Amino acid sequence: MTQELISTPSVITPAELLTHWQGHRTLTRKVIEAFPEKDLFSFSVGGMRPFAELALEMISMNDPGIDGILTGKWSTDFSTYENGRGPKTKADLLALWDQLTEKLNRLWPQIPVARFHEIDLAFGQWEGPIYFILFYWIDNEIHHRAQGYVYLRALGIEPPAFWDRQ
Amino acid sequence: MTQELISTPSVITPAELLTHWQGHRTLTRKVIEAFPEKDLFSFSVGGMRPFAELALEMISMNDPGIDGILTGKWSTDFSTYENGRGPKTKADLLALWDQLTEKLNRLWPQIPVARFHEIDLAFGQWEGPIYFILFYWIDNEIHHRAQGYVYLRALGIEPPAFWDRQ
Repeated sequence: MTQELISTPSVITPAELLTHWQGHRTLTRKVIEAFPEKDLFSFSVGGMRPFAELALEMISMNDPGIDGILTGKWSTDFSTYENGRGPKTKADLLALWDQLTEKLNRLWPQIPVARFHEIDLAFGQWEGPIYFILFYWIDNEIHHRAQGYVYLRALGIEPPAFWDRQ
Repeated sequence: MTQELISTPSVITPAELLTHWQGHRTLTRKVIEAFPEKDLFSFSVGGMRPFAELALEMISMNDPGIDGILTGKWSTDFSTYENGRGPKTKADLLALWDQLTEKLNRLWPQIPVARFHEIDLAFGQWEGPIYFILFYWIDNEIHHRAQGYVYLRALGIEPPAFWDRQ
């Protein structure tokens, strides 16, 4: 950690970034809720994955991911979620989602500020500064959530408003 | 501008945020290019807008938007783009896209650092700190671009890789 990093001009603070991330996660949770139970696990457009699988991908990346950011140790054991071991109901998926929401709130304040500019190899695969890895996850969530918006529209269901993150 | 703001712990610097934004814009440009000319202006899923309209929305928000961020004056004259006045060909849309790429690169370094935490009313409508407004635009682009990914898949076309922002 260098003084230079700490005094680098700030665009967004760690606390603001957590709020930003959790705001997006709140919206994604609303999209999960908007799906009829059956369609959540089966509906698709253009051969892409159902929305439950996309939501589970977010969880399975962000849950060990926050540990990796905090400790520098990246677990690549996704056996909890792989091969159909994930939740089978909307309620179970939402419960898993909410557990992670609490975990992120609990661990985030422990991340040292200088960590955001350290280069790491996330999950032994993706190299970059921690801020880049974090934005990749958030952006990936926005990207896949938008697939969910199209699925909902194709099902004739009005999705939650994009700006509604409360 | 206060010293406190400048020395707030940094997650991402202004230069890094410009790179982040332009990286996403580079990917969106690839998505525009991936569409067959006809489908770019007409293809849709679930009654949503064709991708050319979504891309034009991004331009019509970001072009006066960067001026608003820099000057605090927000133009709400979208007459250049409204009512079918936008580009009619992929080449013209890409040319408009590239003009804005250069404009963002030119103006961005002139934004004072403290500006990112100033509260403003973007286009007289959306109130928040400038960093929030900026991330809203970037997130909105990721969101609508992902619609384009589903359109491409539904057309049987492989979209560009999500991570490819060069």
